[in-house]
Amino acid sequence: MTQYVYFFGGGKADGNKDMKDLLGGKGSGLAEMTNAGLPVPPGFTVSTAACNLFVERGGSLRPEIDREISQALDRLEKLMGKKLGAAEDPLLVSVRSGAKFSMPGMMDTILNLGLNDQSVEGLKKKTGNGRFARDSYRRFIQMYGNVVLGIDKDAFEHELSAVKAKQRARADVDLGEKALEEVIERYKTVVKKQAGHDFPQDPREQLRGARDAVFKSWMNPRAVTYRKLNDIPHDLGTAVNVQAMVFGNMGDTSATGVGFTRNPSTGAKEFYGEFLQNAQGEDVVAGIRTPHPIADLEKVMPEAYRQLREITTRLERHYKDVQDFEFTIQENKLYMLQTRNGKRTGLAAVHIAVDLVDEGILKPQEAVAKVEPASLDQLLHPIFDPRERAKAEVAARGLPASPGAATGAVVFTAEDAVDWSQKGKRVVLVRMETVPDDIHGMSVAQGILTATGGMTSHAAVVGRQMGKPSVVGCGALEIDSRGKRLRVGAHSLKEGDAISIDGSTGEVVLKEMPTSPSEVLQVVSGKKKPEESALYRKFERLLGWADEVRRLGIRANADIPRDAKVAFAFGARGIGLCRTEHMFFAEDRLPHVVKMILSAARGQRGLDVTRRLEGRLREARGDQAAEVRKELARHKKEYGRAMADYQGALKKLLPMQRSDFAGLFREMHGHPVTIRTLDPPLHEFLPKREDLMVQLATLRAKGESKNKAAIARLSGLLRAVEELHEFNPMLGHRGCRLGITYPEITRMQARAIFEAAVQVAKKGIPVKPEVMIPLVGHVEELKRQKKIVQEVAAEVLGNSKKSRAARAAGFTSDASAGGVLRGGHGAVSPPTQEVEYKVGTMIEVPRGALTADDIAREAEFFSFGTNDLTQMGFGLSRDDAGKFLNYYLEHGLLDKDPFVSLDASGVGQLVEIGVKKGRQTSSGLKIGICGEHGGDPASIRFFHGAGLDYVSCSPYRVPIARLAAAQAQLEKPVGD
Amino acid sequence: MTQYVYFFGGGKADGNKDMKDLLGGKGSGLAEMTNAGLPVPPGFTVSTAACNLFVERGGSLRPEIDREISQALDRLEKLMGKKLGAAEDPLLVSVRSGAKFSMPGMMDTILNLGLNDQSVEGLKKKTGNGRFARDSYRRFIQMYGNVVLGIDKDAFEHELSAVKAKQRARADVDLGEKALEEVIERYKTVVKKQAGHDFPQDPREQLRGARDAVFKSWMNPRAVTYRKLNDIPHDLGTAVNVQAMVFGNMGDTSATGVGFTRNPSTGAKEFYGEFLQNAQGEDVVAGIRTPHPIADLEKVMPEAYRQLREITTRLERHYKDVQDFEFTIQENKLYMLQTRNGKRTGLAAVHIAVDLVDEGILKPQEAVAKVEPASLDQLLHPIFDPRERAKAEVAARGLPASPGAATGAVVFTAEDAVDWSQKGKRVVLVRMETVPDDIHGMSVAQGILTATGGMTSHAAVVGRQMGKPSVVGCGALEIDSRGKRLRVGAHSLKEGDAISIDGSTGEVVLKEMPTSPSEVLQVVSGKKKPEESALYRKFERLLGWADEVRRLGIRANADIPRDAKVAFAFGARGIGLCRTEHMFFAEDRLPHVVKMILSAARGQRGLDVTRRLEGRLREARGDQAAEVRKELARHKKEYGRAMADYQGALKKLLPMQRSDFAGLFREMHGHPVTIRTLDPPLHEFLPKREDLMVQLATLRAKGESKNKAAIARLSGLLRAVEELHEFNPMLGHRGCRLGITYPEITRMQARAIFEAAVQVAKKGIPVKPEVMIPLVGHVEELKRQKKIVQEVAAEVLGNSKKSRAARAAGFTSDASAGGVLRGGHGAVSPPTQEVEYKVGTMIEVPRGALTADDIAREAEFFSFGTNDLTQMGFGLSRDDAGKFLNYYLEHGLLDKDPFVSLDASGVGQLVEIGVKKGRQTSSGLKIGICGEHGGDPASIRFFHGAGLDYVSCSPYRVPIARLAAAQAQLEKPVGD
Repeated sequence: MTQYVYFFGGGKADGNKDMKDLLGGKGSGLAEMTNAGLPVPPGFTVSTAACNLFVERGGSLRPEIDREISQALDRLEKLMGKKLGAAEDPLLVSVRSGAKFSMPGMMDTILNLGLNDQSVEGLKKKTGNGRFARDSYRRFIQMYGNVVLGIDKDAFEHELSAVKAKQRARADVDLGEKALEEVIERYKTVVKKQAGHDFPQDPREQLRGARDAVFKSWMNPRAVTYRKLNDIPHDLGTAVNVQAMVFGNMGDTSATGVGFTRNPSTGAKEFYGEFLQNAQGEDVVAGIRTPHPIADLEKVMPEAYRQLREITTRLERHYKDVQDFEFTIQENKLYMLQTRNGKRTGLAAVHIAVDLVDEGILKPQEAVAKVEPASLDQLLHPIFDPRERAKAEVAARGLPASPGAATGAVVFTAEDAVDWSQKGKRVVLVRMETVPDDIHGMSVAQGILTATGGMTSHAAVVGRQMGKPSVVGCGALEIDSRGKRLRVGAHSLKEGDAISIDGSTGEVVLKEMPTSPSEVLQVVSGKKKPEESALYRKFERLLGWADEVRRLGIRANADIPRDAKVAFAFGARGIGLCRTEHMFFAEDRLPHVVKMILSAARGQRGLDVTRRLEGRLREARGDQAAEVRKELARHKKEYGRAMADYQGALKKLLPMQRSDFAGLFREMHGHPVTIRTLDPPLHEFLPKREDLMVQLATLRAKGESKNKAAIARLSGLLRAVEELHEFNPMLGHRGCRLGITYPEITRMQARAIFEAAVQVAKKGIPVKPEVMIPLVGHVEELKRQKKIVQEVAAEVLGNSKKSRAARAAGFTSDASAGGVLRGGHGAVSPPTQEVEYKVGTMIEVPRGALTADDIAREAEFFSFGTNDLTQMGFGLSRDDAGKFLNYYLEHGLLDKDPFVSLDASGVGQLVEIGVKKGRQTSSGLKIGICGEHGGDPASIRFFHGAGLDYVSCSPYRVPIARLAAAQAQLEKPVGD
Repeated sequence: MTQYVYFFGGGKADGNKDMKDLLGGKGSGLAEMTNAGLPVPPGFTVSTAACNLFVERGGSLRPEIDREISQALDRLEKLMGKKLGAAEDPLLVSVRSGAKFSMPGMMDTILNLGLNDQSVEGLKKKTGNGRFARDSYRRFIQMYGNVVLGIDKDAFEHELSAVKAKQRARADVDLGEKALEEVIERYKTVVKKQAGHDFPQDPREQLRGARDAVFKSWMNPRAVTYRKLNDIPHDLGTAVNVQAMVFGNMGDTSATGVGFTRNPSTGAKEFYGEFLQNAQGEDVVAGIRTPHPIADLEKVMPEAYRQLREITTRLERHYKDVQDFEFTIQENKLYMLQTRNGKRTGLAAVHIAVDLVDEGILKPQEAVAKVEPASLDQLLHPIFDPRERAKAEVAARGLPASPGAATGAVVFTAEDAVDWSQKGKRVVLVRMETVPDDIHGMSVAQGILTATGGMTSHAAVVGRQMGKPSVVGCGALEIDSRGKRLRVGAHSLKEGDAISIDGSTGEVVLKEMPTSPSEVLQVVSGKKKPEESALYRKFERLLGWADEVRRLGIRANADIPRDAKVAFAFGARGIGLCRTEHMFFAEDRLPHVVKMILSAARGQRGLDVTRRLEGRLREARGDQAAEVRKELARHKKEYGRAMADYQGALKKLLPMQRSDFAGLFREMHGHPVTIRTLDPPLHEFLPKREDLMVQLATLRAKGESKNKAAIARLSGLLRAVEELHEFNPMLGHRGCRLGITYPEITRMQARAIFEAAVQVAKKGIPVKPEVMIPLVGHVEELKRQKKIVQEVAAEVLGNSKKSRAARAAGFTSDASAGGVLRGGHGAVSPPTQEVEYKVGTMIEVPRGALTADDIAREAEFFSFGTNDLTQMGFGLSRDDAGKFLNYYLEHGLLDKDPFVSLDASGVGQLVEIGVKKGRQTSSGLKIGICGEHGGDPASIRFFHGAGLDYVSCSPYRVPIARLAAAQAQLEKPVGD
């Protein structure tokens, strides 16, 4: 028979610390402490399995579990020599929830359970303190009434205030035993009225009620939300801990307190906590009395203090981690009520992990395993002053898209952001949603705040890319961009008003808040020396240990040299994705890009027409033929002009791209740089279709004749934009499809890459370009694009002067790069080759993954584009999913946002198929991933298991990725 | 050593009729005829393998193949006792291409090869006919110059005309030997000038040139296009046939002709063909002399005629098919030059197949295998009068999207189409592209012509659905909808001008053309009785035989009762897809749909706000709380109003949907009717965002104050539309995602389905509703939608009066339906259940296929939505792909349009995975397909092999699907 109830007490327990799944963190801790001979009040734990049954059965338990609980209670009464509800020396118990992971939002604690009209007298007799007994009883009724019976707290507060007023008492403690008796009567009336029945006098009924309330609280919305945010599965369930009460409020020889073995905010090695004499545990937390620093306990109860220090030090060594403990001293006797690994800030986590190694408590690998990778993020971004933050009112909450604190003046357009910041103002850019056009504004803003969009919307992706604090999808904002006004609930802001956002929490505060910079970032950016920062040195030691463990290579997604530099400083060894098009939006380039697109489209059109005319000419005779010939000549001329414009624009772009690429090569110091050829649909670079339509309509309404020239110009532009318009651009003319229909663009980009490579190699810096063809769904696409790249490579590398410097430089060997000399590089034969390069592909179309065996015949590497793979595999447009994805997450249809954490069971199959088939064809094929998931710890664990060679993430996620990759290897070692 | 050259002659041949792959159709036919002892001029065939080598090597042959050819030529010379190029009785040969499948666009024939300045004299001497010899020589130079040397025909025509003018000759035949000598000299000058070298005198060099020209023609654009259109792989290659010439022009005892053993247009059993006395083969085809009906041959050469009839009759029995033959009679001796299975019209195919069975030549199953399924299409649509058609000039050509001929007045909008047709005019609707709004216009038009879009664009899909002739993607059209004008090349048309389109060929003719209706359709629609149509009876017999063979069930995609009726008449047994939303566009419904959407969105917004306010209320105190409470009350009221509107609109739609569904149930006579819940994104039903923006801009420009009310109204509507706007609607808020976020819609639709079912069942007509949930990517989606459907089913079916009629009706048993009584139907227990139903899902998201094992836990059937599966699996938006997909097809990146014929090697894997995993969980799971591919024979072959239970296609494709399914089973039998 399954055991559902686990007893602890009398020096031994049914459970132990390894049973967190079944007993929860608290229950297994109590069992462990009991087994370790610590002074723990006895009791029992009802397991999480019972909770799951309760949820499944829609809110009831099986009778046999009820019986088991009853037996455990009998045993507890026997051990304590007391009886629940007895008129003499009654047993009182606490009832606490305790899941595997500590979790706010769930019912926490009910104290003093077992008090009723009869046992309250027993308690009075035993303690000789009538006021204490009555006060305990009225607190119990209030807590039980609220938590178990669902009665509004206000109803009780109302009665308490009434009695206080009547008694002219200022504080609760001013009420005497008599007055508290009245409070109890009034409370009982409240219960009867609101719950429709008397306050339960049967202690066993009280216990059943409390237990069910704990189970129910597992599914309450706040708990559900918390689990979602923290990736905790919904089917873990919570345990219920029933424990004999001890009293910290039995006079001045009693006390109660909470503490940490180290400072959880700073990580400093100091005994940290608070206590109150003559008080119950909830008083410490409630903030009614101000507790004393725990150091003061030594003065008032030196023996208990010594014992507490001794026990907690032992606990820290035992659990090999900071302990967060609760204790009560009843008449000079110390009881440990709880201990658990302490929650801590990212800062503290790094300090503590490294300190524990230095103290010989942890081995480096264990330290690596202890630190939550995501928490490192806190070290890399400015933060609000914690005291100011605590006082500030949060006006709205969005999604924490890119961490860090930002404060500044509200601006509503990218142009305004630039204007204001040129005047030396710090600004926060507030938009409905951002678009590629906004990049210049985003780059000067302190932070970005949007009303729509999810964790992988444009603002979120670019924000993370830039390391710029961003809060997105903040639905409470009502933005009036034209009027440059913003409403948040009852508040209204205009351009220039102060706002602050916290990209780590999603909070929005409507005032200026002081921020302090990240120490790590100051070192990385050269503003501080490593030796000036103990934190940075520990951070680097920890990540150094992680590097020794991990098998996955870590690269960064970086488009410009500045980002590449940061990424390298954070430990990225290689660029996994350079989006060449991001460079196209720069102000000095966009006009050439637009010209390139419009003339290419004109050329395409011309080509179509000439082909058609040529076809007609073949069938035409006599006069008709002459006419066709004339028309053909005209079109050929026009086509020639378009092609000349097109080539001209490409020629302008070539040196610009070349210099960007050269910068990337330099910053990567010989590590591979993966450059993706043009990916987005061309219309993204043109004015918006609907904007042109509106402009035209306005001009027309104002008078066709007056605005003839402008109308003609706009109409022409609109026609071109219309021609490129797509219903579903995500699935449209983009990726390699562009390079195939406009081979000249691929040719120009390849030339820029190889010319940059030669340029840098000549300076003695080794280079390793990897040209990556996007959106390949069919091997033929890759084959043709590869041919173009190889042709250009042969031209450029063949023509380049073979300077001695370049020859001498050589190339660092990169284990993750695998077979650099394998196949494919044959386009240029080794003796004449200065620059080693590869041509590979993104696997981001489901068909690409499914036919990876074919594609691997041509690809020298794969890089999974998990963003698009998720979009297509799941049929979800990232930009549109907000409308239902939030609903799905809130209603439990999905556990996690598949754009944040890879959908391992669905889209993950495509990754696994791609890896398996790719390596079937080419056993040593180098495979990476460069989607947003590359910086997500859970996804990194998946990629590690799937056998990838590297992950590539945004620069600011590199430390997280290094740590997560190490933890993945520790959890599930995979050989090289 | 591989043999590349196959000799035939002297009563035996190296090859035979089973070697079509290697020798091509013609070569294997010649070998077979030779082996059968028929009088075939001897020669040899260079195999397709040589062609493939030639293509691979970039245009050259291996020397050993050259040697083999040389040896074969020696053998031929020996057998004939003549020598190529000899001055006395020279051997002349013909050189012909011959692929496995006959194919226009490739080089066809070069005759008289071997003639040069010396052998022309030999020919003169041998035939005693100087004019004939010279004429043969000049024809050879002209043909060789054009085909092999690439010289423009005009250049030769020009010289011929000059000589004719000089001689005052009216026709070629008027030129004497002398004049022809001058023509020859002039021709040689043309060759020298244009080719840069003399006309080759060495016959073996001539042969090499001709052979290479044949090989090259394999890759010429017209041939490539033809193969693409006809699904012929590009790597088959063509053979080259070199054959001793015989002469039909050696006086009146000679003749040449072509013929068919039956009429290839009508299928009538008649000896059909033409001949010319004293002529060469090309004269028959060239149309310079009018050939005589073949029956006349009996009069002029009775013996040869008798022999020809005897031989061709034998050939027909031998090949078990109509023969298309060429013959030459040289001095009363009959030579068979070629025989092959004759191409025929769809009409003829049906007549011939059934006749051959009746004549005992074919078994019914063989007849089934003989008819090209796609050719049946011709029987189901009106056609142009063939004679008129031959004379008409084709002004433009688009994609043949929906077959049939249509003629009428040009109209440019759906409204105009309705107006004109109400006035009794036949119209052709011409649009850039059609949208759902155009449906009413499309339904009254004779045909639809669009400038953009591919084979699966809206116009194409709906056109096929309606059985309406459609030509799409006709890029040559320049449409000015505002001006109601159309330009096609040099022609200009205005509204009301006549136009004709042929949806079977894609041709557009700019005049009225008489059409005749489909006989089969007349019977199906009740306008003609079956006994009045021999064609219909044969059609039904053929399909009856197909039905006996096939394993796949055939259903139809039909949204309205009228379509269902047609589908049933064509043999569909069940509806595989009813798109409920198509009914929403009807004029009487759209207003309710719009109201439903706008109020639902308002309600959603209200719900969001109230939730946020409730959250704030929990944390608020005092005055603040009071304020929040007030706001909350206001929003709750507003929300309530929105929900009331929403429910009101749904209530209006319910009876409309119910009556549609009832009609479908009635028309399907107890066969399953699969109804898909609402699928498209809601914004499709609203005015277009950009239209509203333009209207608003116009009003604003004309004066804000004047147009206040209109601006306010439009702004409100635009806001609502903006909120529903999506960047990639294909991957957005649609399919089950709608039903999940708006469960009331699913509830209404389920209610309409079950109420309709009860209504029809009560009348004694059995019903089998299958509710299909679209776009399921995760089992949880299906689970929740299924729950709603089952709840409604329990309500409706529980409430319905159990009339005796309904009980008595019972249900027909349907083999393809599989386990009707298996699982899932448990929602309503059998005794109270009048209507058996299933709840299943579309598998159209890649993740759905990948997790089919999970989804099968909930699904009672699967139906593959291969359109979306292709869009997502391939990352191709159907509406946008035109821009590059055509390029891909033209440039050989893809063999076929994956929207027309399922991409078996890529997207097909998802189908196979889905079937395998689905049946892993639920072994008898019924699986169908309802994408456009359901009517494509090649795709049907794939689905058959993948183990599907049925295919569902548009009503007019049902006969094709029946036949294709039978052929699939004949090719690759799969047990039940």
